[in-house]
Amino acid sequence: MSETLTVAVVGATGAVGREMLKTLHERKFPATKVRAFASARSAGGKVPFGESELTVEELKEDVFNGIDLAIFSAGGGASTTFAPHAAHAGCVVVDNSAAWRMDERCPLVVPEVNPQALEAHQGIIANPNCSTIQMLVVLKPLHDAAKIRRVVVSTYQAVSGTGQKGIEELERQVRDLFNARDPENKVYPYRIAFNVLPHIDVFLDNDYTKEEMKMVNETVKILDDPSVRVTATCARVPVFFCHAESVNIETEKKITAKEARIMLSQAPGVKVFDNPRELMYPMPAYCIGDDPTFVGRIREDESIDNGLNLWIVADNVRKGAALNAVQIAEELLRRDLVRVPDKNVFMS
Amino acid sequence: MSETLTVAVVGATGAVGREMLKTLHERKFPATKVRAFASARSAGGKVPFGESELTVEELKEDVFNGIDLAIFSAGGGASTTFAPHAAHAGCVVVDNSAAWRMDERCPLVVPEVNPQALEAHQGIIANPNCSTIQMLVVLKPLHDAAKIRRVVVSTYQAVSGTGQKGIEELERQVRDLFNARDPENKVYPYRIAFNVLPHIDVFLDNDYTKEEMKMVNETVKILDDPSVRVTATCARVPVFFCHAESVNIETEKKITAKEARIMLSQAPGVKVFDNPRELMYPMPAYCIGDDPTFVGRIREDESIDNGLNLWIVADNVRKGAALNAVQIAEELLRRDLVRVPDKNVFMS
Repeated sequence: MSETLTVAVVGATGAVGREMLKTLHERKFPATKVRAFASARSAGGKVPFGESELTVEELKEDVFNGIDLAIFSAGGGASTTFAPHAAHAGCVVVDNSAAWRMDERCPLVVPEVNPQALEAHQGIIANPNCSTIQMLVVLKPLHDAAKIRRVVVSTYQAVSGTGQKGIEELERQVRDLFNARDPENKVYPYRIAFNVLPHIDVFLDNDYTKEEMKMVNETVKILDDPSVRVTATCARVPVFFCHAESVNIETEKKITAKEARIMLSQAPGVKVFDNPRELMYPMPAYCIGDDPTFVGRIREDESIDNGLNLWIVADNVRKGAALNAVQIAEELLRRDLVRVPDKNVFMS
Repeated sequence: MSETLTVAVVGATGAVGREMLKTLHERKFPATKVRAFASARSAGGKVPFGESELTVEELKEDVFNGIDLAIFSAGGGASTTFAPHAAHAGCVVVDNSAAWRMDERCPLVVPEVNPQALEAHQGIIANPNCSTIQMLVVLKPLHDAAKIRRVVVSTYQAVSGTGQKGIEELERQVRDLFNARDPENKVYPYRIAFNVLPHIDVFLDNDYTKEEMKMVNETVKILDDPSVRVTATCARVPVFFCHAESVNIETEKKITAKEARIMLSQAPGVKVFDNPRELMYPMPAYCIGDDPTFVGRIREDESIDNGLNLWIVADNVRKGAALNAVQIAEELLRRDLVRVPDKNVFMS
């Protein structure tokens, strides 16, 4: 690692890009220089960074010389195109899109779960899907203690998962409905206001959505354990921020609800918020802007021998995207891994 | 059955009571007289019935003489107090509250699922919980074909499940938030607007909510099969009408998704709405006022040998309450069961 450390945020004008800049500043990330990139359309504009502002530069293939670390949140297309050029220039990429997640050359990392996977990185590290991150922060300690065999998850996902345009769609549709105007669907195929859409990302040949299969496949890769079976149903709810998840697990060894509460209260990145008698349980509207992943409604599932039900909530823009990416960057620094071992790996 | 048939709706001024009157009229229920009852507070007022109106009468213990059939939706307290007096007066009660559901003397009936249970009624028949009804209309044909071993369900429930006051709370909170006023929580313990509450009905000693345990216990009673194991997580979402459910089932015999679609498309009360390629799947905002229970997102669950995922949506006020109760009344008529065999059963 050189004495200077130049960090770029690519896709700096989006909801997640802005949160990344905010998170880098809040956590006092030791960059000597921070640069902001976006498409030509946004170039020349300003984005906030702490008390000051950064001028947005246009993303091009040749901009990465002199940049040590780039955090990408510019969509799968931009990541596919530009991340190899970054790595080729010696710039380590932490990518928030789905483009590189299942690539065998790329570690897929939740720092509380599998930081050791970073050691083998070759220039591009993938940030997992938001729904997967928050689920695994909670499941990892239970998997270590009792080996998870099967996960049945149903999600309640916020519109901010679709970015700023999702937030604007919900807001506009609510205003239209409350003012007797016909609400238009621009972002989602159907109305999201006062509705639930069992459809996130595109449908695949097996009739699951890509979002659902991300939860299945990314879980196996991050836990590095193909014996863990996952089935998922992902739904969009009319909530602005924070995803909630109803998670049912079956474990090899019995864990009581009480034992799970104790284990989880000692787990990194997890906050147990679970006291039904006091009406304590996590909710999206009350976790906005928070770093931890919250878990409550921990109950033994009496329908099987070794089952638990959990209710997991986290800020999808923060832990689900920006914070996890910045934590990966911090872990790379800590492990002295801000370097690309072979600059040609992704150029073939 | 006499030549005349007097029917009463008890709790006629509530959201479900009004829907019951509407449903009786729409379906041309062959009553010679319909009467509306509510608490003293509402007595003397009017409720719509078809083109005309009914004057609301005060609910008292001695009002049931001359009434053949009473459909109750006035809350558990009123049902506990008044249903025995109705039965004692020879009036058959179809009760929408939870008060009598688990009573061994009372059949718990979804007409598409277990109409035969009506034959043994002793004067009080219970209408199941809304979430249970819509789930069982869909699960019954699958259970008959392949024997369901286990159900893992997560619900997305509308505020109308709490009655008119739930609808008003969501509407008021949205208006307050969009007008920069602090939204007040009068009905729910926390804000429901743009939020999800993993809490419906009260918490029990096992940390499940009463709503969750209704789904577990009522399913076993209605299917009359204690070998079916159910675990439930019930959540309230900011939606006005229609409950959605993510249902995962494990069956003894394998059923493919295609077989399930065929079976369900022939099942009474079920409408298969399932074509991901055409973005066809059921959603709360698009099922309001509809009679059928809609099912889509039918997928084989690859995490177990014989598993299916289903997405079930129905109008909770209609099939989940009023329509199911009126269907029970119709079935009682069809089977010539509008009579109380022993008027003293519930008076002991």
